[in-house]
Amino acid sequence: MSKRIFLIGAGQSATILIQYLLRVCEEKSWNLVVGDSNLEVAKKKLQNHPEAEAILFDVTDRKSLIKQVSSSDLVISMLPASLHGLVATVCLDQSVHLLTASYLTKESMEMDADAREKDILMLNECGLDPGIDHMSAIKVLDEIREAGGKITGFESFTGGLLASNTDDNPWKYKFTWNPRNVVLAGQGVVKFIQEGRFKYIPYSKLFRRIELIHIPEYGYFEGYANRDSLKYREMYGLEDIQTMYRGTLRQTGFCKAWNIFVQLGATDDSYQLEGVNRMTHRQFVNSFLSYNPNDSVELKLAHYMNLDMEGEEMHKLQWLEIFSDELIGLEEGTPAQILEHILKKKWTMKEEEGDMIVMWHKFNYLLDGVPKERHATLVSVGTNQHNTAMAKTVGLPLGIAAKLILTGVIKSRGVHAPTHKDIYEPILEELINEHDIKFVEEEIS
Amino acid sequence: MSKRIFLIGAGQSATILIQYLLRVCEEKSWNLVVGDSNLEVAKKKLQNHPEAEAILFDVTDRKSLIKQVSSSDLVISMLPASLHGLVATVCLDQSVHLLTASYLTKESMEMDADAREKDILMLNECGLDPGIDHMSAIKVLDEIREAGGKITGFESFTGGLLASNTDDNPWKYKFTWNPRNVVLAGQGVVKFIQEGRFKYIPYSKLFRRIELIHIPEYGYFEGYANRDSLKYREMYGLEDIQTMYRGTLRQTGFCKAWNIFVQLGATDDSYQLEGVNRMTHRQFVNSFLSYNPNDSVELKLAHYMNLDMEGEEMHKLQWLEIFSDELIGLEEGTPAQILEHILKKKWTMKEEEGDMIVMWHKFNYLLDGVPKERHATLVSVGTNQHNTAMAKTVGLPLGIAAKLILTGVIKSRGVHAPTHKDIYEPILEELINEHDIKFVEEEIS
Repeated sequence: MSKRIFLIGAGQSATILIQYLLRVCEEKSWNLVVGDSNLEVAKKKLQNHPEAEAILFDVTDRKSLIKQVSSSDLVISMLPASLHGLVATVCLDQSVHLLTASYLTKESMEMDADAREKDILMLNECGLDPGIDHMSAIKVLDEIREAGGKITGFESFTGGLLASNTDDNPWKYKFTWNPRNVVLAGQGVVKFIQEGRFKYIPYSKLFRRIELIHIPEYGYFEGYANRDSLKYREMYGLEDIQTMYRGTLRQTGFCKAWNIFVQLGATDDSYQLEGVNRMTHRQFVNSFLSYNPNDSVELKLAHYMNLDMEGEEMHKLQWLEIFSDELIGLEEGTPAQILEHILKKKWTMKEEEGDMIVMWHKFNYLLDGVPKERHATLVSVGTNQHNTAMAKTVGLPLGIAAKLILTGVIKSRGVHAPTHKDIYEPILEELINEHDIKFVEEEIS
Repeated sequence: MSKRIFLIGAGQSATILIQYLLRVCEEKSWNLVVGDSNLEVAKKKLQNHPEAEAILFDVTDRKSLIKQVSSSDLVISMLPASLHGLVATVCLDQSVHLLTASYLTKESMEMDADAREKDILMLNECGLDPGIDHMSAIKVLDEIREAGGKITGFESFTGGLLASNTDDNPWKYKFTWNPRNVVLAGQGVVKFIQEGRFKYIPYSKLFRRIELIHIPEYGYFEGYANRDSLKYREMYGLEDIQTMYRGTLRQTGFCKAWNIFVQLGATDDSYQLEGVNRMTHRQFVNSFLSYNPNDSVELKLAHYMNLDMEGEEMHKLQWLEIFSDELIGLEEGTPAQILEHILKKKWTMKEEEGDMIVMWHKFNYLLDGVPKERHATLVSVGTNQHNTAMAKTVGLPLGIAAKLILTGVIKSRGVHAPTHKDIYEPILEELINEHDIKFVEEEIS
């Protein structure tokens, strides 16, 4: 029976998802409709494929939303998280499955009973992080528990990094995903539990409290903690766990240098700076330093942050040209918006550069009273600026889930993240067997 | 003609205001009604005075609010700022003057035209800070401008401090006003302008960026910047000023030690800690430090904050007993609520202790092209825990304003802060001549 999939959003993150869905639709003689506020972008990605149609689409146009949803069997929303609510309500009304890669919210959880009654699955957190992280971790946790083990600790780190470094870039980092999220990362308080003690780190100390993580064949990375590691205890069935820590990976040396922007206040998104239209990079930095016309901005910064003038951090800042007299090139902005704009000048991937996803889980458990430790590692490398590992690892779980729901392999109904075996097992299986998204597992002790 | 004043709120901050209003009512044969949610407190403060009545009052009971306001000639609201809106609307409806010591809001500014039409004055920011700071600064600014001077810089610092130190307290500080505001002080970003350059300080650096201020006869104090010094440019008629900085005064050494709580994250009011009911002071501190069972909490803190184990800051922390195994004594709380609770155990004024208000203004200006500098300093000392300088300097401007409005001396109408000569001049005059609240002015150059 022919099926119709409606994908909302054809941006960069949807590239590989669209390619996957086109192949599925071809194979199954299904139809794909891609709606985007930019018709040209959507058209270009579909490349005149016979089973697919691009439409100009505005999610706030309720009539058109209802029309598209009601004539589809499954909707995938790649919209910003705040707009999923609109789509979810209509999907529920029209009894149409919904997939997103965004966080499960309290509001969507409240639709669970209705979704079951309407016999639909509303699956969230089905991308990379959140997404593959849950699926791969819960798979191992379930295996350990099924073998009679008791989980005592779980740590998980994910990083979106640069695979190659063609620029002699001392940060070994560029934006490989939403730059705004990178600039704002870590704001708010961090919570985790270690050996039974609850621990809290304020944003201003976050990039000092790093862990060193060794990834086989790739060496050492540094990890800083994600906001709330505690909230996953229930989802993972780890209510009594002694250690639970989720974090983000960066190349070594990144956090110490990034911390300079944090300490300056340059990542603040809560207020507008004055006089942005006439401001240079140098003046932007100077606006966070004390007034002293006899000292250079470089020396004032180095002294304030306790840095060597010739050291690695100053080298990283010089490479970004943040002390230059170049105009920022914005009319107005918050510190975070201005910093993002300056960073993009140097941190934008070149055509031939590839990104890299690194995900690492550590499981501690007791088996017959004996302490055991297992690691699971995923490394996925992108081939160029368009075929990124990020777009692949975010898009494929969504695409696979769409296919498996519509072919009846996934039978779960209600509102979920991919934490049930019925959902995660077939998705992981296809990721591993057909797309080379593989976790290497190691039994450490 | 007899007048009726309705005072809402009989808390600690209203003590001296009530005494003043009772004297005025006695002298003028006016009536004072004091409404509070705690009738006993209100009754006690009125001490069976014949011209005064205490009533049980709930500001959210609209019928009772209308009844009280409509039968009064002037209302003074000592409620939390968020509740003034309720009172203001009814005062406007009933054409009754309103006084508060809270910040002028956008919402109240919008009542300006209506207030003029109804021939009433709605005067806000008429306490100490805001209040006396505006009046005393604008008086000098007006004098300088009337003499033909051009203002180039204005700095202003106020501190609520401890006058005596009977405890050998190394902080030389106790709570002399709302402890919650002290714990949360400085959160958000700081903005000011110095020599024509806009400057910004994030909260995490605020207590490091201090200024030393010399107060004649009292020695040196340290000052840290208040949130937004820029917003007063318009109110003070200083739109083109090159330097504008407002700050808070503390005893020297305070900020460096207080900064430890800020850096730890212990002043965060945005989330609840886990397991507060069983938590000791020591565990509270440890929840912000890395897990390492082999190191003491003291050493971990000293290392994290780069402190000498035997130094002044550790001495201050030890004196507060923050490393003790004493239970906190709260069922739940945010870090800021818990810190406030711990601090109150040591930072509560004793019966015989007095507080001290220090206010200092610095004016830079050009007179006939010659740079000039003038300082104005107020020091007011409280006599004990009840007759605080804080209650005096907050309450008297309100009381005096009430009297002067009802006797027709103050003729301004509309919504205001005390920035017009018609308002500030007679209030300052009585403060100086009858209440010994005097600024010492010095022409420095």
